[in-house]
Order: sequence, then C-alpha cells, then structure tokens
Amino acid sequence: SRSINLAVIPGDGIGQEVVAEGLKVLSAVLPQDVKLETEEYDFGARRYHATGETLTDADLDALKRHDAILLGAIGDPSVPSGVLERGFLLKLRFAFDHHVNLRPSKLLPGVATPLAGEPEIDFVVVREGTEGPYTGNGGTIRKGTEHEVATEVSVNTAFGVERVVRDAFARAQARPRKKLALIHKNNVLTFAGHLWTNIFNKVAEEFPEVTTEYMHVDAATIYLVTQPERFDVIVTDNLFGDIVTDLAAAVSGGIGVAASGNINPSGEFPSMFEPVHGSAPDIAGQGKADPTATVLSVALLLRHLGYEAEAARIDEAVAADLSERTGKPARSTSEIGDALAVRVAG
Amino acid sequence: SRSINLAVIPGDGIGQEVVAEGLKVLSAVLPQDVKLETEEYDFGARRYHATGETLTDADLDALKRHDAILLGAIGDPSVPSGVLERGFLLKLRFAFDHHVNLRPSKLLPGVATPLAGEPEIDFVVVREGTEGPYTGNGGTIRKGTEHEVATEVSVNTAFGVERVVRDAFARAQARPRKKLALIHKNNVLTFAGHLWTNIFNKVAEEFPEVTTEYMHVDAATIYLVTQPERFDVIVTDNLFGDIVTDLAAAVSGGIGVAASGNINPSGEFPSMFEPVHGSAPDIAGQGKADPTATVLSVALLLRHLGYEAEAARIDEAVAADLSERTGKPARSTSEIGDALAVRVAG
Ligand SMILES: CC(C)[C@H](C(=O)O)[C@@H](O)C(=O)O
Ligand SMILES: CC(C)[C@H](C(=O)O)[C@@H](O)C(=O)O
Repeated sequence: SRSINLAVIPGDGIGQEVVAEGLKVLSAVLPQDVKLETEEYDFGARRYHATGETLTDADLDALKRHDAILLGAIGDPSVPSGVLERGFLLKLRFAFDHHVNLRPSKLLPGVATPLAGEPEIDFVVVREGTEGPYTGNGGTIRKGTEHEVATEVSVNTAFGVERVVRDAFARAQARPRKKLALIHKNNVLTFAGHLWTNIFNKVAEEFPEVTTEYMHVDAATIYLVTQPERFDVIVTDNLFGDIVTDLAAAVSGGIGVAASGNINPSGEFPSMFEPVHGSAPDIAGQGKADPTATVLSVALLLRHLGYEAEAARIDEAVAADLSERTGKPARSTSEIGDALAVRVAG
Repeated sequence: SRSINLAVIPGDGIGQEVVAEGLKVLSAVLPQDVKLETEEYDFGARRYHATGETLTDADLDALKRHDAILLGAIGDPSVPSGVLERGFLLKLRFAFDHHVNLRPSKLLPGVATPLAGEPEIDFVVVREGTEGPYTGNGGTIRKGTEHEVATEVSVNTAFGVERVVRDAFARAQARPRKKLALIHKNNVLTFAGHLWTNIFNKVAEEFPEVTTEYMHVDAATIYLVTQPERFDVIVTDNLFGDIVTDLAAAVSGGIGVAASGNINPSGEFPSMFEPVHGSAPDIAGQGKADPTATVLSVALLLRHLGYEAEAARIDEAVAADLSERTGKPARSTSEIGDALAVRVAG
C-alpha cells in the first residue's frame, strides 16, 4: 500500500491558516489506499524568539526522513530582516539542494488581472535555487562608518547552471508550445552572463524541437506586462527568478494563487512546496488569507510524488472555484478550503 | 550671453534618427540669445568595427569639455553582448561619475498603458549609477569547462549610497507628496541591504517631512502593476533600478516615452541624457522610431542646465502631442519631431 510521509511547516502569520486548508484538500483528494502521515514542525518566529534557533542540524536530519515538505510562510516583523530568510528558508533550500525552483503562472478564466484586455498567460518559471547572489557570499568592512564597504557575490557554476538549464529544456520539450526563454543580464553581468548563455546555447543543441530566445531581465519585465502570452518556459538565475516570479504572479491572478516547488530532482532530499506569498502579518489570524496558493502548491507536491491524477483534480477544483468567485461575497480561509475539499472529493 | 556646448552621440540604430529630432526640438525651444553649439561623436558599433575602440582616454577628454551630452542609443547585434555596454555606456557613466540616474515615469492623459483601469502614475526613480553589480568586479575560472565558476561582485559603499540617498530625499522633499520608497532585497542581500537600509534610515531623520517606506524589489514589481499611484520618489541600487525602470516605463506609456538623465550633481563632469530604449535595430532607418523619449530627455537636460521654462515647454508640448494621438494614423520619426518643434516654438 502507498503512503506519503509529509513534513508540515505552518510557519508564521497566515502560514498557519493556509497550511490547514492545504492539508484539508490533500486529505480529501487522496485515494483511500494512500496512507497520509504528517508531522508538524514549529519553525519560524516563535521558535526563534523562544530558543534563538532557526534550523539546526538535528532539524535537517528530521526533515530529511520525509517524502516532501509543505511550508506555509516564514517571517515576522519582530525578527530582524534576513534572520529567518537566511537562517531558515535559504538554509533549507541550500541544505536540501533545491536547485529547481518551479513557479507556474496561469491566468485562469474569471480571475482578475491588473492588465488590460484578456491576456493569455500560461507559463512556468524555472528559477535556479542554490546559486547566484543568494549564496550569502560577500561581507562588510568598516561597518557603520562613513567608509563602510559591503559586497554581495553572485556565484555561478557550470555544474549548477547546466543542471537547471537541462531541467528547463526538458520541461519545455514536454509542453505543447516547446518554447524556452533565458532571462539574464549578460550585457552587464558578463562573467555570469556568458556562463549562462553559453551553457544555454550548448544544451539547446540537444533539444532541436525547443524554440529558444534570450532576453535581458529589464526587457523581460516589459514583456511580462505587454506580451505575457509570449512565454512558455522561462529559465533564470536565483535573483532574477525571484523578481520575475513576483511580477508573473501579479499579472496572472495575484500572489493569492501563486504556487511554488523547491525541487531536488534527484530525490536525494525531500522537495518543499510553498505559496509564493509571505506571512502577511497584517491579516494573520483573521481568516482572511486566500489558501488557494497553498492548495495549488499541494498539487505541485502530489505531481512531484507521482500522483498526477490527484494533482489534476486539485487544479481543476481551483479553476472551477476561481471562475465562480466574481460578484460573490468574500469567503473566509476555511470556507475556501472547505469548498475546494468538497470539489476534489466529488 | 548664454551658451550651451553640447556633445551629441547619436550612436547605433534608431539612435541616429531620434537624436536628430531631439536636436530639432532643442533648437526650436531655445531663446534667441542662447548660443547652441553641438559637436557630434561617432561612438558605437561602426567605430568599434572600424577601429576596435569603444571609448578612449582622448574621447573622455574631449567629452569632458562639453556642458552636457545627448545620447541616442548604443548597441548592435553585430557586436558581442557586453562589449559596447561595458566598453562605452557603463565606462562613460563611471568615468563621469554619473551616480544619479534619474528616470521619471508619468502616465500622461490619452496615453495607452497595459494596465487596466486608469491608474495615476507620476513618480521618479533615482537609480544609483556607479556601484552595485555594475562595477565589473568578479571573474571567471576554468572558462568553458564543466568546472567553470563565474562570479559577479556587487560593490556598495557608504559614500556611494549616502550621496544618492540624499539626492533622492531632496527630490522627495521638493515634491508635493513628499514620499520616498527604498527598494532593495535586504532580507537576502543582507550585507548590501543593511548598508542601504541603515543609511536610508539615518538620512531620513534629516527629512522629517518626507514619508518613507521600504520594500523588497520583488514586492515592488507587484506594486508597480497593482498600485503604481503609491509611488512618488523611489531610490534604489543600480541593478534593481535598471529592472524597475523598464517596468515603470512599460506601465506608464512604454519605452517610446521614457527619458533618463545620468547626472553628475556636482557638475565636475558633464551629465548625459538619453532615452531608456535601446538601438532597436529591427526598425532602424525606417523612420518608425518614436523620438518622444529623446525629446523628453532633452527636457531633462535643459532642466539640469537651468533652463526650467524651456524644459517645461517641452514637457507641455509632449503632453499635448500624446493626448492627440489616439485614432490618428502613425507619424514618422521626423513628423513627430516637426510637430513638437512647432509646439515648443509657438
Ligand atoms: C523570503 C525570500 C527569502 C524569498 C526569496 O527571495 O526567494 C521569497 O521572496 C521567495 O520568492 O520565495
Ligand atoms: C544597456 C545597459 C547597459 C543599460 C543598463 O543596464 O543600465 C540599459 O539597460 C539602461 O537601463 O540604461
């Protein structure tokens, strides 16, 4: 009999609320014969304030034993900026070698977009997750003085770039339109830019059916608002990926519906699934958060573990739910979760 | 009697065409008693192919003698990516210490935006121009092998950050809404992020009337498409500024109308004014380019040199011209230039 052994990290703010709904829908969609085991971890601001710890070696050992991780959101204004991001979120992505950060953007029928007209948006961003300016390399001298110098070092390796570029080409190859865009800034960041561009062009030779294009990150932001239908698969570095996926989320229905997977394709470590949004402390505890992004992250999680039919059922339930929202009164977090659970079970 | 001694760099592609119109409008707007002298420089792809040179010490000496520089666009597909950007554009910005890169975004009445509704957009981005990941620091080892490592180093100094932050606060103070947003990614790029944030907060104490906010660059892209009216003045680093100003241009009428100034506030070196758009080789030589961004850059140039009334006349002429475009047949580059020249003279 099959089983899923899931680590659950509700985290801070609305993380608690949205993860509860994600689990509700997960339970509802799974067939009877699949045994779902969940273990909850209390990472985030409370634990940091109580113990000073963000993520210990023992924590990593414990997490490692799970099939996958579902995360709500981490971050709170009471913790200095960077402490939980670097000490937990990025530490985990790096420790578990989550080098494929997968962020689909699909504007579903009936969903509002800030863009005029009715753009067709259906693309996926493959963001590198373990290199670039996110490595924490760099430092500060003469801190706090008028002679302070602070550096940030973007580290890019052929190994790291090639594996994520290959992953993106394979995804493009498997999609009907078979298009892949590389986003970088190779006219200014020439060292990293040439590495990315050369590897991209080399791997492209192995995928003759995939149509490729290159664009600078600044130009990409223009296309994302003027011609979002242009994109099918995008591959890009860690920082550019962070920026363009928030913009992509904004134009394709908002961060209320933006899901993501931090994937370790080899399976050596569990992959982690989380909504793109943060902990939103301003609306936490009020039942106002939209759990849809978390529910869609659960679909990515199921797809990653091989439960394609169940993932598709969630996607369909969300599409149906979203298409019926216009003009209706706002529902609470758990009402939306309930509605989705009913749909996926039905 | 007054005089303006202008260096003119038409550059590549549509640069030639739009600069001609910029000069046409400049001549038309200047009072009789102002003597306009222009000297044209042939920098760009042609010169690079002919001589291998992008910008020599002698070139810099020559440019230094002018009151200001008007640039069209530099860049051509025949030149490898980065050669002209690093060898000319960035070399000049760094050599002349253009640390205030000024990019206003204003959605004028009658101008199309990709955003739904009728957003009110009127803000200015103060982008740092001489530091960050643009310094060219970094390098490559084991180039072309599977063990290649490429780094890019973002360099940030208290000196460099404070002067641009001060400039931005002064601009915010001088505007009716008196709002200033710092855009960075201080939760991940913690070394540079803390330097920027600390200096921003310190300088803020000297400007108690200015309302400040901080936002991460990823979140900023969301606000730029969902709440662009939120912004008044933005200050940010070189790379984030590059990205958000292209997005800002896209939502406020497109890069056809986005002007910029690379400013050396002390006046030690001449400042340079250029449209945000590139050389657009695909439409070059066809009279299709919109010279408006260049004409608005001429207005920034005039304002910088103290010709406020003339700058305002150009802004008004452009606003009037744009407001009458809808439904009319497209005009050529020179027809638009002629129309603007008539308006500013009239
Ligand atoms: C919170 C932060 C560390 C994170 C990132 O920059 O990757 C977030 O913005 C995201 O996109 O997942
Ligand atoms: C061409 C390039 C070097 C330049 C930049 O990145 O600054 C351009 O994108 C700009 O915004 O002026």
